[in-house]
Amino acid sequence: MTNRKRDTGCPIAYALDIFGDRWSLIVIRDLLFKGIQTYSELLKADEGIATNILANRLKGFEASGIISKTRNPDNRRQSIYNITRKGAELAPVLIEMMQWSARYDRNTRVSDALLEKINKDREGFIRNIQHRALSRNQPLIPEKK
Amino acid sequence: MTNRKRDTGCPIAYALDIFGDRWSLIVIRDLLFKGIQTYSELLKADEGIATNILANRLKGFEASGIISKTRNPDNRRQSIYNITRKGAELAPVLIEMMQWSARYDRNTRVSDALLEKINKDREGFIRNIQHRALSRNQPLIPEKK
Repeated sequence: MTNRKRDTGCPIAYALDIFGDRWSLIVIRDLLFKGIQTYSELLKADEGIATNILANRLKGFEASGIISKTRNPDNRRQSIYNITRKGAELAPVLIEMMQWSARYDRNTRVSDALLEKINKDREGFIRNIQHRALSRNQPLIPEKK
Repeated sequence: MTNRKRDTGCPIAYALDIFGDRWSLIVIRDLLFKGIQTYSELLKADEGIATNILANRLKGFEASGIISKTRNPDNRRQSIYNITRKGAELAPVLIEMMQWSARYDRNTRVSDALLEKINKDREGFIRNIQHRALSRNQPLIPEKK
């Protein structure tokens, strides 16, 4: 992924400059929906992300304000990745992708119950996901830059 | 972009296998929102897409059923790219990205009037976009494979 920004004023281009690649939204999925907060756990995603790609994406997300990094107070050598409000507000993008894939990919493992829940109260479902993700963010010790 | 599919059953992975890169949603934006249907017009996007990337993405979209290709009856050497129902149903993903960027990128050129229109009647706005995109698809002569 190149880091060159396309300054066209198009909101789609802005978004793709931040997460337009094969891996970014996989990592954001794990941070946002699965509650994963550590590098080693992110590395275990089923899709098999490479360690250099993961490191690169996390660095980019921090620069874009999608995540913030703190240290684990119980193990100061471990970084904890917290999704920010800006990152959590990507939930609707992921939900729309999920619904689209559920419609078109017969191999997608999304339960009908989940889809129904989203259809019934999309806003509530999204708020709940965001609230849970943001409340995981304990007031840990901010990492020194 | 590699074509290797990640068969994890995750709907996000499925979607990213189809359009998870720096350019795909730029092309889909132009097909879906700008009503562009020809290669030469797609190539003129402000973001400056390279001709080999555009050709590669269009081929992939056809294989994924996002677009179909026909010949222009008035100029049989010209291909016309039509967005399919599957492609048009990506509109909500693009709309969510647009709203997110409008919130976070102060350089994004999206009018308040447009954002208000979407906020007021999101479903109607999306239906309208899709209807217009799909009704552009004239019954042209299908291109022979």
